[in-house]
Amino acid sequence: MDLIYLLDLIGTFVFAISGIRIASRINMDVFGASVVGFVTAIGGGTVRDLLLDSHPITWMADMTYPLVILAAVPFTFLMGKRLNNYSKTIFIFDTIGIALFTIIGMEKALSFGFNPFIAGMMGMISAVVGGVTRDVLCREVPLIFRKEIYATACLAGAIIFYLGLELSLPENLNYLFTTAVIITIRTVSIKWNLSLPKMKKV
Amino acid sequence: MDLIYLLDLIGTFVFAISGIRIASRINMDVFGASVVGFVTAIGGGTVRDLLLDSHPITWMADMTYPLVILAAVPFTFLMGKRLNNYSKTIFIFDTIGIALFTIIGMEKALSFGFNPFIAGMMGMISAVVGGVTRDVLCREVPLIFRKEIYATACLAGAIIFYLGLELSLPENLNYLFTTAVIITIRTVSIKWNLSLPKMKKV
Amino acid sequence: MDLIYLLDLIGTFVFAISGIRIASRINMDVFGASVVGFVTAIGGGTVRDLLLDSHPITWMADMTYPLVILAAVPFTFLMGKRLNNYSKTIFIFDTIGIALFTIIGMEKALSFGFNPFIAGMMGMISAVVGGVTRDVLCREVPLIFRKEIYATACLAGAIIFYLGLELSLPENLNYLFTTAVIITIRTVSIKWNLSLPKMKKV
Repeated sequence: MDLIYLLDLIGTFVFAISGIRIASRINMDVFGASVVGFVTAIGGGTVRDLLLDSHPITWMADMTYPLVILAAVPFTFLMGKRLNNYSKTIFIFDTIGIALFTIIGMEKALSFGFNPFIAGMMGMISAVVGGVTRDVLCREVPLIFRKEIYATACLAGAIIFYLGLELSLPENLNYLFTTAVIITIRTVSIKWNLSLPKMKKV
Repeated sequence: MDLIYLLDLIGTFVFAISGIRIASRINMDVFGASVVGFVTAIGGGTVRDLLLDSHPITWMADMTYPLVILAAVPFTFLMGKRLNNYSKTIFIFDTIGIALFTIIGMEKALSFGFNPFIAGMMGMISAVVGGVTRDVLCREVPLIFRKEIYATACLAGAIIFYLGLELSLPENLNYLFTTAVIITIRTVSIKWNLSLPKMKKV
Repeated sequence: MDLIYLLDLIGTFVFAISGIRIASRINMDVFGASVVGFVTAIGGGTVRDLLLDSHPITWMADMTYPLVILAAVPFTFLMGKRLNNYSKTIFIFDTIGIALFTIIGMEKALSFGFNPFIAGMMGMISAVVGGVTRDVLCREVPLIFRKEIYATACLAGAIIFYLGLELSLPENLNYLFTTAVIITIRTVSIKWNLSLPKMKKV
């Protein structure tokens, strides 16, 4: 499971970077950008833990998370525009992060005795709330509500993961397969510029 | 009490519709609109439960709520503009929802041993937070902070309900009377275009 | 410790005023302004208590807080523009509030067994979240993310306070010294118009 922990940390790091970058574009200072990075990285897990009444909150009990996020601030600052050269790598790890946050959120909710539907919601909340809070703090209409198949990918991943549990797939395989599905859906949807239908205005 | 449960579900459904509609007007996709509908419908109760430390959160323990909210998405989509023909019916059920959320929130807080003042606040939070979160996600200055006697109606309802408890009114009667007061205040204030005084700019 | 309780209440009062004033400028009604005042004053402590799983939430258990906040509404209304004549006094008590919220948040987190780093974060959250929520509700990019050494002052205060604990300074002295540091940093930074560096846009 150490690989999963490592990937979870990398996902956290990449989420923090995404927050810091968006904050930097609206002229925030270093502190503001750090806060937005922090909230982007831990927002989803925090809301999940509060809803599940799971204490201590994950990042409050494992200092690795806050430190990884803090490290993202000078990293982003030093890399600057060069980050654009790594957008594919960032995209991959961002998507792996989304996948893992979904899976970990689901597993946690299931272990608390919630049904698969609620567990799927907790998985999606883990993956999605950080980005939504980032956008609210930066006064954007949350990105995932307008573009990208981001959340749909989580949803599909959650369903696949649950099926894997029901079919008693080996855990590693189930992780791998779920992550692959999420990466595939997100990549394909971006490549072919797919998006969900807009709601009719009513 | 089954009637109250039914009305609570209808209120949830109508709150979800209000979220979905506002989301649809700012060009959200189906997923975004669903999230906004969800948050509008369960936001108030969730914050109330977190503040009271009441777990599991209501909608996480009773699947009827999430299912009713999910049903609101295709319903709103299929009804489309025709919803405008039912704006009076929607208004009535929305107001009944507000009234019930206020009462249920108060009763819960009182049963947790909080005093009537805090219980009244929990009632108002139950009724109001969903709509506020909806407006923040859609980048509006929250509607209830600018227009309508919405929250004042909740406040009056909370006071009436507490008086009913103190006077040992039969529960059904107290529910009915409180709801009637809230509906009356809201209807009258809209009909006569009443609103609270603005704050002086200071 | 009675002086600290008194200053904490004054800080709460001044935070509420700041919320009410900003709300009044964007044309909110009396109710909206009251809510924004409330959230500004108790937002930080509430999020801290939820994260620490500390129940009941402080202001739900001690009615003095809600009453002090409620009193801020007519006070702000009656004072009106005259508040501008007292901006120095308000600034002092606002800063004392920030300092005390930081210290009290830290002490609470430490008493819950969290390490000094997490405790420092809880202190800053106590001091900062109310203002951030106020700005989100009023559709501003949160002020502290753009201007002022506000949060840096909290951070410095948190470090000083922790050093004081480690050095077993008498509690009163530690409170006094920490507060003095925070007031000094904030005053100097405003006087000399210091601010944190902006993030480079990336």
